[in-house]
Amino acid sequence: MTSPRVTIKDVAARAGVSKGAVSLAFNHKPGLSEATRDRIFRAARDLGWAPDPAARTLAGSRVDVVGLAVCRPARLLGLEPFYMEFVSGVESVLTEHSCSLLLRLVRTVEEEAGLLESWWRARRIGGAILVDFRADDPRVEPVRRLRIPAVAVGHPSLTGSLTSVWTDDASAVGEAVRYLAALGHRRIARVGGAAALGHTAIRTAAFDEAARTLGLAGARQVATDFSGDAGARATRSLLTAPPGDRPTAVVYDNDIMAVAGLAVAAEMGLRVPADVSLLAWDDSQLCRLTRPTLSAMSHDVHGFGAEVARTLFGVIGGEGGGSRPVATPVLVPRGSTAPPG
Amino acid sequence: MTSPRVTIKDVAARAGVSKGAVSLAFNHKPGLSEATRDRIFRAARDLGWAPDPAARTLAGSRVDVVGLAVCRPARLLGLEPFYMEFVSGVESVLTEHSCSLLLRLVRTVEEEAGLLESWWRARRIGGAILVDFRADDPRVEPVRRLRIPAVAVGHPSLTGSLTSVWTDDASAVGEAVRYLAALGHRRIARVGGAAALGHTAIRTAAFDEAARTLGLAGARQVATDFSGDAGARATRSLLTAPPGDRPTAVVYDNDIMAVAGLAVAAEMGLRVPADVSLLAWDDSQLCRLTRPTLSAMSHDVHGFGAEVARTLFGVIGGEGGGSRPVATPVLVPRGSTAPPG
Repeated sequence: MTSPRVTIKDVAARAGVSKGAVSLAFNHKPGLSEATRDRIFRAARDLGWAPDPAARTLAGSRVDVVGLAVCRPARLLGLEPFYMEFVSGVESVLTEHSCSLLLRLVRTVEEEAGLLESWWRARRIGGAILVDFRADDPRVEPVRRLRIPAVAVGHPSLTGSLTSVWTDDASAVGEAVRYLAALGHRRIARVGGAAALGHTAIRTAAFDEAARTLGLAGARQVATDFSGDAGARATRSLLTAPPGDRPTAVVYDNDIMAVAGLAVAAEMGLRVPADVSLLAWDDSQLCRLTRPTLSAMSHDVHGFGAEVARTLFGVIGGEGGGSRPVATPVLVPRGSTAPPG
Repeated sequence: MTSPRVTIKDVAARAGVSKGAVSLAFNHKPGLSEATRDRIFRAARDLGWAPDPAARTLAGSRVDVVGLAVCRPARLLGLEPFYMEFVSGVESVLTEHSCSLLLRLVRTVEEEAGLLESWWRARRIGGAILVDFRADDPRVEPVRRLRIPAVAVGHPSLTGSLTSVWTDDASAVGEAVRYLAALGHRRIARVGGAAALGHTAIRTAAFDEAARTLGLAGARQVATDFSGDAGARATRSLLTAPPGDRPTAVVYDNDIMAVAGLAVAAEMGLRVPADVSLLAWDDSQLCRLTRPTLSAMSHDVHGFGAEVARTLFGVIGGEGGGSRPVATPVLVPRGSTAPPG
């Protein structure tokens, strides 16, 4: 469609504007009236001109696409309030920069490593956000080698030399267990997330550590896939133990599993919190909408996503380092936790 | 970084593979061993070669990016299970085509119209998904004029000549109201979504129509922004009417507002369903996790997203028409609806 003889200068002349104005219009930046924008697009259409994306990116101080690959099954992603709030926080900052998010679901982190390399080499993205780190994560090396501006969402023990932003899960798990123990609970269970994820492993180790420190012999943990169904099954299995062996408090790795736990307790005729205390994680608005309301480890997931995006623009702009924990979850007690009955 | 003298042929020769294999690797397509892919990327790196995205798209039978702009505040998006399930359904089909989603939050549909034009002219996208149609929607004309391959998610009365896929909201609202009336309810209320949206207007008109047909003098409707907080406020306002005037059944425009309604009923000492019946909309897993469980107008939102993406690939492939309703919500009765007490 583009004729090689037509240049941005021709378009500017035909529209009666400067080259800078044409550039503003095609880069979707503010500062032009609707009428001027229309005139520029009409002139470009008449002349059969379109900007060369490669040239633009090479010229490019400006990053207008950031990549995010997520390695979770599509169905589970749709059910997880965390991700949507995280993405909405990222988007809130990208929008300020007229930047879009290139989103892709992948089946393995190895596939993601290849995808990031393709995106970067094809100049599709100006930077990337990496999430859900594993031990010995295969994305660290290529991102470092290709010098892709990136922010890793994960603990530095998992993210190597990449700039990373994380929530201090170990401290938060410790706080949760100490609080329940202070209420008098000795048999405390944790319904954890996907075992392959680095942050799940960190929480699992922190739970063991806290239980050992406090001498809680009845502590136990179950792994799930983060879904409400898996959370319900895990809760049912924990609560069917004989009364003297049954946990009196359960900590969940997300909100939806805690909501499911509340339903299972009701189904089994157990009162919350008199018979069993439940503690959610993330504190999306769900926790305030149940009866009883759910006590939760609370953090601002939307703000966390925004902070990750801001850090990425810092990395793209050449600011070094900046790795830091943000938004460490804090305990918000509500109606689902109490001393054991 | 790219030298203009180096071609794909040089990269293929250095890696000891065909040009086709280099193309496969850079287009992130299957069919190459990990070792071959690595060799190709190493050769390209050594020679300082990268594919020209403009050339690729022009050559391009293949579409590897599809655009989706969403005109809702970032914070509300994060709280809406519908969107994440819809996007996860879209992604499940895009992934099969090694295609990514370019996602952007916009403030107005006018901004979205400009963005789509920029994306398309800069060859950023090979097609687009349009959602949340308004009356006289400003996106219809430019998308048609620029011949952007697109699927409009909305009723044909809103989407003009674009290929559209929609849920038959009018039929579903009619079914919901008739069911509650058949249970014996006369004072039925609806807590609706954002009034500016076309599908909200369709539901509002269908509710009025059903109430008129059934002679329900006590029917009333309230508009919200789809958030749980707004759903709670609307429910509180409806249920504080004097008992003889209070609705005995409430239909919600999404699940999160129905969950909020359940909490408000509990807070006001009203039993569900003995004192008031509640009916949710969308039927995400939330509806099965509350006590009582929520009756809902149920559709497969994930499957809806997948169908929209499949239709888009049809449009990109040159298949015409194809506008049709899919996934009309059907009533799933659970524990929150019963004859009035």
